[in-house]
Amino acid sequence: MALSLENINELLESKPRGPWARPVRMVHEAAVGAGVMAIVVSTQPDMAGPWDWSYPAIIWTVAALFAVEFGVRLALAPWVNAVHRDEPWRARWHWVTSFAGLVDCASVLPLIELAARMPASQAQLFGCLWLLKLVPYAPGLDLLGRVLRSARRTLVGLLLGFIMVLVIAATLAYVVEGEAQPATFGSIPRALWWAVSTLTTVGYGDEVPVTVLGRLLAGGVMLCGIGICALWTAILVTGFSYEMRRSEFLRTWDLVARVSYFQGLGAATIAEVAQLLRPSDFATGTVVIRRGQPGDCMYFIVTGEVTVDLKPQPLVLGAGEFFGEMALITGEPRSATVAARTNCELLHLDLADFRHLEARHPEVAKLIDAEAKRRRAEPFGMRQS
Amino acid sequence: MALSLENINELLESKPRGPWARPVRMVHEAAVGAGVMAIVVSTQPDMAGPWDWSYPAIIWTVAALFAVEFGVRLALAPWVNAVHRDEPWRARWHWVTSFAGLVDCASVLPLIELAARMPASQAQLFGCLWLLKLVPYAPGLDLLGRVLRSARRTLVGLLLGFIMVLVIAATLAYVVEGEAQPATFGSIPRALWWAVSTLTTVGYGDEVPVTVLGRLLAGGVMLCGIGICALWTAILVTGFSYEMRRSEFLRTWDLVARVSYFQGLGAATIAEVAQLLRPSDFATGTVVIRRGQPGDCMYFIVTGEVTVDLKPQPLVLGAGEFFGEMALITGEPRSATVAARTNCELLHLDLADFRHLEARHPEVAKLIDAEAKRRRAEPFGMRQS
Amino acid sequence: MALSLENINELLESKPRGPWARPVRMVHEAAVGAGVMAIVVSTQPDMAGPWDWSYPAIIWTVAALFAVEFGVRLALAPWVNAVHRDEPWRARWHWVTSFAGLVDCASVLPLIELAARMPASQAQLFGCLWLLKLVPYAPGLDLLGRVLRSARRTLVGLLLGFIMVLVIAATLAYVVEGEAQPATFGSIPRALWWAVSTLTTVGYGDEVPVTVLGRLLAGGVMLCGIGICALWTAILVTGFSYEMRRSEFLRTWDLVARVSYFQGLGAATIAEVAQLLRPSDFATGTVVIRRGQPGDCMYFIVTGEVTVDLKPQPLVLGAGEFFGEMALITGEPRSATVAARTNCELLHLDLADFRHLEARHPEVAKLIDAEAKRRRAEPFGMRQS
Amino acid sequence: MALSLENINELLESKPRGPWARPVRMVHEAAVGAGVMAIVVSTQPDMAGPWDWSYPAIIWTVAALFAVEFGVRLALAPWVNAVHRDEPWRARWHWVTSFAGLVDCASVLPLIELAARMPASQAQLFGCLWLLKLVPYAPGLDLLGRVLRSARRTLVGLLLGFIMVLVIAATLAYVVEGEAQPATFGSIPRALWWAVSTLTTVGYGDEVPVTVLGRLLAGGVMLCGIGICALWTAILVTGFSYEMRRSEFLRTWDLVARVSYFQGLGAATIAEVAQLLRPSDFATGTVVIRRGQPGDCMYFIVTGEVTVDLKPQPLVLGAGEFFGEMALITGEPRSATVAARTNCELLHLDLADFRHLEARHPEVAKLIDAEAKRRRAEPFGMRQS
Repeated sequence: MALSLENINELLESKPRGPWARPVRMVHEAAVGAGVMAIVVSTQPDMAGPWDWSYPAIIWTVAALFAVEFGVRLALAPWVNAVHRDEPWRARWHWVTSFAGLVDCASVLPLIELAARMPASQAQLFGCLWLLKLVPYAPGLDLLGRVLRSARRTLVGLLLGFIMVLVIAATLAYVVEGEAQPATFGSIPRALWWAVSTLTTVGYGDEVPVTVLGRLLAGGVMLCGIGICALWTAILVTGFSYEMRRSEFLRTWDLVARVSYFQGLGAATIAEVAQLLRPSDFATGTVVIRRGQPGDCMYFIVTGEVTVDLKPQPLVLGAGEFFGEMALITGEPRSATVAARTNCELLHLDLADFRHLEARHPEVAKLIDAEAKRRRAEPFGMRQS
Repeated sequence: MALSLENINELLESKPRGPWARPVRMVHEAAVGAGVMAIVVSTQPDMAGPWDWSYPAIIWTVAALFAVEFGVRLALAPWVNAVHRDEPWRARWHWVTSFAGLVDCASVLPLIELAARMPASQAQLFGCLWLLKLVPYAPGLDLLGRVLRSARRTLVGLLLGFIMVLVIAATLAYVVEGEAQPATFGSIPRALWWAVSTLTTVGYGDEVPVTVLGRLLAGGVMLCGIGICALWTAILVTGFSYEMRRSEFLRTWDLVARVSYFQGLGAATIAEVAQLLRPSDFATGTVVIRRGQPGDCMYFIVTGEVTVDLKPQPLVLGAGEFFGEMALITGEPRSATVAARTNCELLHLDLADFRHLEARHPEVAKLIDAEAKRRRAEPFGMRQS
Repeated sequence: MALSLENINELLESKPRGPWARPVRMVHEAAVGAGVMAIVVSTQPDMAGPWDWSYPAIIWTVAALFAVEFGVRLALAPWVNAVHRDEPWRARWHWVTSFAGLVDCASVLPLIELAARMPASQAQLFGCLWLLKLVPYAPGLDLLGRVLRSARRTLVGLLLGFIMVLVIAATLAYVVEGEAQPATFGSIPRALWWAVSTLTTVGYGDEVPVTVLGRLLAGGVMLCGIGICALWTAILVTGFSYEMRRSEFLRTWDLVARVSYFQGLGAATIAEVAQLLRPSDFATGTVVIRRGQPGDCMYFIVTGEVTVDLKPQPLVLGAGEFFGEMALITGEPRSATVAARTNCELLHLDLADFRHLEARHPEVAKLIDAEAKRRRAEPFGMRQS
Repeated sequence: MALSLENINELLESKPRGPWARPVRMVHEAAVGAGVMAIVVSTQPDMAGPWDWSYPAIIWTVAALFAVEFGVRLALAPWVNAVHRDEPWRARWHWVTSFAGLVDCASVLPLIELAARMPASQAQLFGCLWLLKLVPYAPGLDLLGRVLRSARRTLVGLLLGFIMVLVIAATLAYVVEGEAQPATFGSIPRALWWAVSTLTTVGYGDEVPVTVLGRLLAGGVMLCGIGICALWTAILVTGFSYEMRRSEFLRTWDLVARVSYFQGLGAATIAEVAQLLRPSDFATGTVVIRRGQPGDCMYFIVTGEVTVDLKPQPLVLGAGEFFGEMALITGEPRSATVAARTNCELLHLDLADFRHLEARHPEVAKLIDAEAKRRRAEPFGMRQS
């Protein structure tokens, strides 16, 4: 029993492993897609016709599926939570009040509403939250979240500045344009609508100043608008480039430490090598380098295996080995095609960074050079990747 | 008397300390919010009804409150200004002509206007300036101000370029479109309105060229528009990333110098360590690290105290100590929950930066390692954060 | 035969060499331009008149030209593809299924359609794909492609976030505004149209919320919109500055290694010098430096020759030599005009970077200084560039 | 005569010196402003009235003034051009064909047109070119120009990509929407108008797709639009931060080399110090530091003099001296007010950078420290800035 629960848990993880995890995840994503699509389309009267019966059916099915998922996850919560494993209900409560738990709760609501025969438009409101179930799978969303969090002080300051400009612009517009256009600028709340649409450079054009003073004010507000957008961008660019560098470094560091060639180097050298290498993933069967193409990088294998299609018989390279170094040393095009035999994590070293490495850490470059010479000298020429 | 004045002064500072400062500041912010909201809503005729009597009451109250604040601040000015302490009226004049003083003056105007029974719309004009009273409290606004100031030369150049493109575009539009649409392009000032709304990419659409030449011109103006927005952003990004780095470094330097573990290091090492650490604030009661979660940083306490909830009895750590280093050294999840016991200033060191520190300053890393070993070896396992 | 095929192949390469390559490329680009222009203009009824007969003629001619090009490239494919040279049909299939091959296939379609007497609007659809034939020639497009590819994980995450905000905003707008404006917000697909035009800050203004709740929602959507644009920019800025630095370094490294003055330096020094130099191209006849102008950089010749117009007789400098160093050393204006005698690849060294070079690599600066002294000391003052 | 010509020339330089240069430049700028304003306003029929007679008078006067300026500059060209000083007409031709010369030529055209009694709208067309006369004075415009020039390859590639997306989007819109809205999407040129206004996110809203396919297409075009804007920004940010750093360094290097305290240091140290200092200008009479304020930087005087308002008698510091170092060393507020006695060029050293300097170049910091000690020890406490 414990084993099967663990297996089920594994299938539901956000980073799936094992043969069944991928199909389970695809069904999950397809259910979210179909459910949201059905909700969206079902509100359009002229799209009804022969397919009309299908929308409620899809929504029911998807909602039922998510209800089952909610139950399974609730049951599994103690196995997932390492801390509260011996207090099952506390673990469950922890999960329900987490972001994922709240989204899963909300995902069940449409089912209850449908069962309670509420009007469809209510069910739709919560059904669209199904999209949030994709958040854990989305690559990069956590990075964006971290950027926003670390820049939140400045962003809040900018938002306050935005509101100040907004209210002052609306008040001025109300004073200046109020008499000329009482219907659209006759009160500050109405003028706020114009101000927000102008300050964000959206510019609907449903409310437009007509007096000279009003247009001068509008010109100033537009300039403030592009200034605020630019500041917004400046804050995020600064934060993003910091977080990007940090998360790349962390991942690469872990991988570099696992490559056998680098294990003899000191911590100082590894920290610098980790800044030169960049991680990349290859799915089973993908071609990493293709024979005859010009080469501008070499690869280190962290996990998985690759096949080098040499003529007598293909060669298999495993974790800790490298390939593609010939192109960097001799400058010739790739002499063999290399494809991923299993899912692989590789580190690639660009020509530019190989030059840096040669300059700053000749001992690492010599290591690579020695291995390359050994390969070329092998009697059967088997390793000519 | 001198003491009580100092206390009042402390309550009104922009960075409040002491138990009463926070409520005073919240009342202040609430007064600004309520006053501005009342002014905005009171201009909307259809929002009147049963609440109609309340708007003037709120505006009167808030204006009176700010008048009192103005008086208190005016009286206190000599205590605040260290230079002119012996010339009270000169100190007061200094304060009145500063930004904060001018805003406070303007905040009192609505009261005078209401007292003089002027029409409400005049009072509103100045009432919205109440929002400016929030400027000293806004986090990050001073940073934005410094960025704009240091980039002002280039920004003025860009603004001049903007005006050139604007006037030349409007003149061309007037020549090209003037005959086809005399009502909207029949004079250069009218064409300017179209040009500014196009060049800022707002695009109201109330004036649109219809001739072929006019549309070609508009296409060119739009391209200039996104070019100018991009230049604007480029200038601010460059300035912002410079100022950001500078202000972070300054704050961190101050804090690092106060942590006892770093006091033995030379200035050169401290300057580098200060670039790796990042400051963060935690309010009383906030959880800093949670048991069972994966850990990717350690913390140094600069000011304040934290509680580590160990089983026999919780442990209190104070200024100069650090915690959370186990996660960096062993890679295991956090073994205890740590919460802020008072308001804390902490410095956190990311895993990535800890690796850099290990590589470049092994002596600092060894210091941390030795303390970590000592903690694990303690008989009662009391310090397992 | 083999030789002539090679020659034809050379003419069709994306980086043409030889005297005939440039005219061939210009004809190619003119054909694309004329063909697309003819297709665009031919759909405008009131532009017909006396030129009406010409549009089909141009389209026919261009389509026929591209059909011939397609045939030639198909025939040549085995000569181009180094790997499959001995399997001609496999090489052809490889080429047809590549991006360039697919574009060339699509470029022939209009001819077949015209031959099959299909209506013109069908032919136009594929004719506009002719523009894609310019992709291999466009400078910088491959750089942009690499940036997008390397940032694709984060961009996909952001796109998913965009879709989430879009669908949730549309659902809320449908619930809030549906009753007030059934024609424009009466179904989620209709509300989606409003949401996408608002979230991208385009703001057509054909659908605008009118209720208070709807306008508050719209304000939030606009803020999300400028946030998403800013994140988009942040991701691309980070990726672009990385790729830019990398591709610049690679090109400069290659060039520096070919300049004779730098060949005595070690790899470490070359790697640093390569970061200071910046490559630039000059077409035959272009003036590189002009007599009497202030000088802020010196040049190294990588390939090609330049003429220094000295009085007794002009002086020719070839690959591996440098000029313009006087301005950096003495600060005087340029003493002679230097023009490119053939197409040249030059490396230029700015004054700022020359100072860095002096500081960090005095041996390189001394080399330049010694040569400069030698030049000034020459009896006939021939080398005073 | 030669002397007076030189004086006149000096008055007309873009970086004026001497007592008369500033008023001359202000008159020049005022003439441009008044002329352009008069042209703009004179086209507005309802702004006529009692001022109607003044507009032609202003335009005539300004045009005449610029004709005189053109003549003077033409006469002076041989004195300005160092190379062709002995060939006056060649020097004049050089000047006329330069950017400034062409603008000055165009500035005279309105006068000729007015004299030839052409309709006013023709004169306006060239009159607006008067604005271009401000280009040499605009701070930062040359920096922006250099950024655009160095990024032109990538920008041209992006522009080509923009045109591809534009034409393909317009063709698809024509096919998809052409039947539903023949008036606005009935030909590709008309659809191009919609495409350009959407792709630049201007979104006039005068042409909007109504079919489902057309709206899906429009959504894609909007996404491309914000993508293109973001790429545009990314290119400019990268180029701008490079040029900014380069031009700052160049200016600072020059100034640092003129400060006597730094002349004993080697080139390597000066290059690093130059990266820490930042130049700033102060006009006569401006207060640089104010007594009692907190201090976070010290200043080195490059040119000009400052007055320290000490009690017995004010102290004057000249080029090569520094002040404000106390605040960095002791952390106390400024002990005296320092104002610029003449126009000054100062270098300021931030606290953050002073810490870096202490860490990396203790010899420079010691120099400053020694001088600070000497000042405090002086019998009359005269130098306590």
